[in-house]
Amino acid sequence: MKRNLLLVARAAITAAAISSLLSGAAAAQPAGDSLPSWNDGAAKKALVEFVQATTTQGSPKFVPPAERVATFDQDGTLWVEHPMYTQIVYCLERVPAVVKAKPELAKVEPFKTVLSGDREAMARLSMDDLLKIVAATLTGMSVDEFQVEAKKWLDSAKDPRWKRPYTELTYLPMIEVLKYLRANGYRTYIVTGGGQDFVRAYAEEVYGIPPEEVVGTAGGTKYGYERDGKPFLTKEPKLLLNDNYAGKPEGIHLMIGRRPIAAFGNSTGDQQMLEYTKAGGGDRLAMLVLHDDAEREYAYGPARGLPNTKVGTFTVALDGEAKKQGWVVISMKNDWKRIFAFEPASGQ
Amino acid sequence: MKRNLLLVARAAITAAAISSLLSGAAAAQPAGDSLPSWNDGAAKKALVEFVQATTTQGSPKFVPPAERVATFDQDGTLWVEHPMYTQIVYCLERVPAVVKAKPELAKVEPFKTVLSGDREAMARLSMDDLLKIVAATLTGMSVDEFQVEAKKWLDSAKDPRWKRPYTELTYLPMIEVLKYLRANGYRTYIVTGGGQDFVRAYAEEVYGIPPEEVVGTAGGTKYGYERDGKPFLTKEPKLLLNDNYAGKPEGIHLMIGRRPIAAFGNSTGDQQMLEYTKAGGGDRLAMLVLHDDAEREYAYGPARGLPNTKVGTFTVALDGEAKKQGWVVISMKNDWKRIFAFEPASGQ
Repeated sequence: MKRNLLLVARAAITAAAISSLLSGAAAAQPAGDSLPSWNDGAAKKALVEFVQATTTQGSPKFVPPAERVATFDQDGTLWVEHPMYTQIVYCLERVPAVVKAKPELAKVEPFKTVLSGDREAMARLSMDDLLKIVAATLTGMSVDEFQVEAKKWLDSAKDPRWKRPYTELTYLPMIEVLKYLRANGYRTYIVTGGGQDFVRAYAEEVYGIPPEEVVGTAGGTKYGYERDGKPFLTKEPKLLLNDNYAGKPEGIHLMIGRRPIAAFGNSTGDQQMLEYTKAGGGDRLAMLVLHDDAEREYAYGPARGLPNTKVGTFTVALDGEAKKQGWVVISMKNDWKRIFAFEPASGQ
Repeated sequence: MKRNLLLVARAAITAAAISSLLSGAAAAQPAGDSLPSWNDGAAKKALVEFVQATTTQGSPKFVPPAERVATFDQDGTLWVEHPMYTQIVYCLERVPAVVKAKPELAKVEPFKTVLSGDREAMARLSMDDLLKIVAATLTGMSVDEFQVEAKKWLDSAKDPRWKRPYTELTYLPMIEVLKYLRANGYRTYIVTGGGQDFVRAYAEEVYGIPPEEVVGTAGGTKYGYERDGKPFLTKEPKLLLNDNYAGKPEGIHLMIGRRPIAAFGNSTGDQQMLEYTKAGGGDRLAMLVLHDDAEREYAYGPARGLPNTKVGTFTVALDGEAKKQGWVVISMKNDWKRIFAFEPASGQ
């Protein structure tokens, strides 16, 4: 039901955008009410000017609707990624179920450590260990079974700091950007280092982004038949696309086949997507979310003297590149009036 | 210009479909004029009934617009594939340019045979030979260079039988199906064993299908920088998706993430796509084009006593499967009043 409402809303927005185009209306949608959670400042100004320039018929920077593609990193750009990517939490919390099905894993690392519940030991797991856990929890089941499991978890799991479902930890100002762009004829793709199938399990409900507009790290599947002859796809532990760093423009070419007009990220893993976007002709927008608000969310860089981090690193070099290339840095602290929809609207 | 007109037409069709939905109009678009190149018969009837059932609000088989995905094989389903896939012709005709850039290839097989122009010898090239030619002509250049080359060739190359550009050898009745489905809120994807980038070079102009709705056999790309720092993607000889047989449902899951509601093919390479489509709940349509018209196009099977072929095989087993599973076989000879747009409209 909720999902159907979203679809209707989406159709209505698209219809409005298209009929405004067809009626020859020259002006873009007014931004006045579209970005209420943004403070006035350089970031909001850049966004609004870009949308107006690319959607106003007759503007030298006008972009035809079919080419209006905007790409968004997810973790740290659309929702919280600290202290750990949500999908990694999912994988860790799936370990008991995997071990129940394969009891021999209980005595094998890294599963043994995960089962111990010792968070400090878990934090020391190597990348190799994590990959073993990822393979065991994200592959070997059918695509449909995985969707059911992921959705079930998302419905019940809660972030320990906010005591809320992870799907509520989306950034309200970015949700406004998604809607604002869509209202202006843009298609908004997620281009995430996270698992494509995992993100597809909630992207439509949470972001209004349908499965076909989610590009992510993707593994192969294998076609087979059940006993009654019904075909199904099994998720295989074979990596097809590592959708991070250079993998982002590669994934964009593979899955979309168009260069984005606008791209949004927050870390070094997004640099190549932003470069690729800006290297196209005409007006292009590239923005980076800087996590500089320890109080309302998290603060990490190490750019601008913020604490260093392994999750969602925003380096000094990335900050320098942003300055050099004209990418707009969004300060969560200064540019966002409100971060989460569940926060009371303050300071307005 | 032509392209922009197409885009506007597409937007208008979508807008019409959406506003009819929003206005609560219950009836699907009338099919009377939508399929003028089809003779009345079981195939046309199945098509029209399916579209009406899935798009009429209140129908027990109603499919919400977001889920209306139809997938089409290309070679032999949307355009001519005999005597040789058009993309293979492209690869063979690109060999002189490749050898010019790398003269040492002139003395090496299979390039030597291709350069000889001996068509009989070329017809005997093995699959391994063809793969070498494919790798040499479709990879090693940037994605943008490839688009330019492919478009240039498509503008000048002509099919030897009809003396017309390959892009005119599309089946008018199938173009009508694409438009009819889109007018009824379906998105029409190409799911081809052909190269994804090759088909994207003309799919928008020829079929009204944008790059993001073309799923095909896809190789990896590699992100790199020109001397001036401008990034670009190079086409690599690394296969990511072999979009044939079981690769079709795998590709559909990878690139679209939804099970189609309708699927169209013409050969054994499409069987799994049709199975996967029909295995979903609710009303699903699966259709197969049978090439049984030697006079107006080609005749090949070997089903139903038609001549055997290596290109686009429609086996007796596939015909049996169609009967068993309720897939509709389209007879080019009996179901299509007219095959090509350039033919005079006869028998009307």
